[in-house]
Amino acid sequence: MTDNLQLNAEGKLKHFLTIEGLSKSLLTEILDTAESFAGMSEHQVKKVPLLRGKTIVNLFFENSTRTRTTFELAATRLSADVINMNIATSATSKGESLLDTIRNLESMFVDMFVVRHALSGAAHFIAQQTAPHISVINAGDGQHAHPTQAMLDMFTIRQIKPDFSSLRVAIIGDILHSRVARSEIQALNTLGAAEVRVIAPKTLLPAHVESLGVTVSHNLTEGLKDIDVVMMLRLQKERMTSALLPSESEYFKCFGLTEEKLKIAKPDAIVMHPGPINRGVEIDSKVADGPQSVILKQVSNGIAVRMAVMAMAMQKQGVTA
Amino acid sequence: MTDNLQLNAEGKLKHFLTIEGLSKSLLTEILDTAESFAGMSEHQVKKVPLLRGKTIVNLFFENSTRTRTTFELAATRLSADVINMNIATSATSKGESLLDTIRNLESMFVDMFVVRHALSGAAHFIAQQTAPHISVINAGDGQHAHPTQAMLDMFTIRQIKPDFSSLRVAIIGDILHSRVARSEIQALNTLGAAEVRVIAPKTLLPAHVESLGVTVSHNLTEGLKDIDVVMMLRLQKERMTSALLPSESEYFKCFGLTEEKLKIAKPDAIVMHPGPINRGVEIDSKVADGPQSVILKQVSNGIAVRMAVMAMAMQKQGVTA
Amino acid sequence: MTDNLQLNAEGKLKHFLTIEGLSKSLLTEILDTAESFAGMSEHQVKKVPLLRGKTIVNLFFENSTRTRTTFELAATRLSADVINMNIATSATSKGESLLDTIRNLESMFVDMFVVRHALSGAAHFIAQQTAPHISVINAGDGQHAHPTQAMLDMFTIRQIKPDFSSLRVAIIGDILHSRVARSEIQALNTLGAAEVRVIAPKTLLPAHVESLGVTVSHNLTEGLKDIDVVMMLRLQKERMTSALLPSESEYFKCFGLTEEKLKIAKPDAIVMHPGPINRGVEIDSKVADGPQSVILKQVSNGIAVRMAVMAMAMQKQGVTA
Repeated sequence: MTDNLQLNAEGKLKHFLTIEGLSKSLLTEILDTAESFAGMSEHQVKKVPLLRGKTIVNLFFENSTRTRTTFELAATRLSADVINMNIATSATSKGESLLDTIRNLESMFVDMFVVRHALSGAAHFIAQQTAPHISVINAGDGQHAHPTQAMLDMFTIRQIKPDFSSLRVAIIGDILHSRVARSEIQALNTLGAAEVRVIAPKTLLPAHVESLGVTVSHNLTEGLKDIDVVMMLRLQKERMTSALLPSESEYFKCFGLTEEKLKIAKPDAIVMHPGPINRGVEIDSKVADGPQSVILKQVSNGIAVRMAVMAMAMQKQGVTA
Repeated sequence: MTDNLQLNAEGKLKHFLTIEGLSKSLLTEILDTAESFAGMSEHQVKKVPLLRGKTIVNLFFENSTRTRTTFELAATRLSADVINMNIATSATSKGESLLDTIRNLESMFVDMFVVRHALSGAAHFIAQQTAPHISVINAGDGQHAHPTQAMLDMFTIRQIKPDFSSLRVAIIGDILHSRVARSEIQALNTLGAAEVRVIAPKTLLPAHVESLGVTVSHNLTEGLKDIDVVMMLRLQKERMTSALLPSESEYFKCFGLTEEKLKIAKPDAIVMHPGPINRGVEIDSKVADGPQSVILKQVSNGIAVRMAVMAMAMQKQGVTA
Repeated sequence: MTDNLQLNAEGKLKHFLTIEGLSKSLLTEILDTAESFAGMSEHQVKKVPLLRGKTIVNLFFENSTRTRTTFELAATRLSADVINMNIATSATSKGESLLDTIRNLESMFVDMFVVRHALSGAAHFIAQQTAPHISVINAGDGQHAHPTQAMLDMFTIRQIKPDFSSLRVAIIGDILHSRVARSEIQALNTLGAAEVRVIAPKTLLPAHVESLGVTVSHNLTEGLKDIDVVMMLRLQKERMTSALLPSESEYFKCFGLTEEKLKIAKPDAIVMHPGPINRGVEIDSKVADGPQSVILKQVSNGIAVRMAVMAMAMQKQGVTA
């Protein structure tokens, strides 16, 4: 689906729902805007008045304290007012439909919805249905997309390896159930990475995975050759049916990233993970905490990237510190 | 009960607990103050510094994300600091009494309690017991009162039909269990409506309902004749014992508002509902979403009316934008 | 354990984890700083911009709305931004370790953790492990320490009886399970109280209790003689095994504070309790609400003392209004 829904009449970002259909120049604009916010944080200037007086609603239909916190921090540092709504315990339990919930909230003069939902497409649905003055940011919908996670990963890669066209990136693990993987593959291809390689057992790959624009390996040892960026995925235990799956220890043996296996990649390869980490399942602690890991940089960059996307969606493109 | 408790020595609003006992001029002052806030919102000026530095505690003994959110938004737009307390999961579970909870909070130099409680009279009790400098706003107590809902309804009516003295208003549905209905009847009578008509099966009417100052109909088709304002109530399924009640489909057949039945009312009648809507139970979607519905206007006006009541209770009467 | 961990290179407060190891002059500095904030509140100046732009995370691994609220209020009145995290329902349930949670939060450029945890030593662990620019405040860890409660008690005592060296203080009740008692004993001894007397049945005293620097009585009537300050403890019913314990009514008969028993203490003795109160279990309502009770003063002072500790830990020592 090409997503003109995400752009306003001048081609500027209005909603941020998926990487799909966004241009390389728009993704680059997000990264550049985030860079100005990241620079501020390093100089202990954490707060800017860009969204003062704006109301941002964290609309979480799926509990995620971690993701909610990063968006709340980003919004607060843009000086917006934030309302947290955990909808699992709210009006929908009185039988109100999602659409009625949205209609009610938009009537309260709010400016942005940050949406987390267990169903793929929920953020799109809300963006299609809501009032024209409201922006929608997808904070993860089902197995579909997690675009701010993908962009903070791109930002982290660019900090260390600025030339995407020379990069070979491996994404390792549960590709089948991962909204993060889907968004990362799209972002890497849009930004022109030399190769995006997925490494997973067949049971954790979607059908026709090559059509996403990736090369495929079923063997971690072979697959890591010539790789510049190693992106681990979280093993989504709760999303898998046990019959198809290896045990945790068997999975770790085949697809867990250890120091030894990491040596197969390029010597200056970086290791990424969207968190939270299953230590000893998909990644060894020595790697997660080792010198090639940029996992905590990803967390830091998440604030700057979310500030950038929120500020741009509120028609503040090109803002620099 | 005449409620001098609600007024300070100069006759100004101090607590807002019930419509009962308040004068027409005070209700009009609330509507006028709300009008200035509503006008601001339309011009994208959402925030005023009236309550800067004040602390408002949302004291919710009954979960209601929807109502809590409207008060939190109203308080935020007055620049107050808001503390959300869901008391079901708090100190009372350690055996602390309601009164001890109140004593503790007032010792923390808070300025206002917004109280939601399942028991009728809880907000009054707190207003009677709390320190003199603290204001109490009733956000719904049992089957007793929901005065801010009533006032936002009055505000919405006045926007469209400014002359209350010519209005015939029908309130339809579960009058027996509805705090909203009680408060609306009082507000309409105080503001001088020509007629307040309740339309409900006998099982959903309190005894001696006429003593509230209403006319009564048990038949929706007959009852809607000459009506200017149609106020639907939510069917409070959780509050009713099943033996006395018709099924949902039977209820809808007799008392559900459809396009066809709405034609019996005046051609320019407006349709209201306090939300959340049970579509297909008390109201047909075609009516709820139709041209005569002002249901979402009610939601918008809820912010301005709550800002007005909060600002006035904090001794800021007559504030205009 | 001497706790140099709590002080920075200049000997100033960096973390506030326990009273143990802190000097009399530092405790006095906390009390003096709190005094300036308490004075402000009385003059209706509730908010100061000391921590504007700072981010404080309420990291509650154990639910406590009451304590969380006091810290949230204190932080808000210092103009900090507050993020509430109830970790019982968060990432740790996805298998993330405490350390990974801390690493992630510190990567988001937060400035302070307020930690509540069911395990003794949790706040120390976090202070040892976290990034150098972050301060940690212990809001209660297991049976170990609750230093802000102890300091607000010292502040309340000093308001009424400024000379600690002449004071005999009794701490009554469940000493064994009480982090409050531990911290109070340390604070009173550091500030030079003439005597700290614990009064409890043997089953509710730790072994070798005298080594804490207290005298011991097992009889309330005898123990209250010559006492200036009566500190009651909450009976922690949930922490006790029933076999060792008297019934509530038996406990009240032996160790509950009544008007009659209070007469045994000095005539101007004050009565304290950290709350929430079990009325009729450890204290009679006539005493709790009587003229010698300073229980609600303790609550008020809790805000000023927490503001003082937070401001000092953020390197703002000696700030006065």
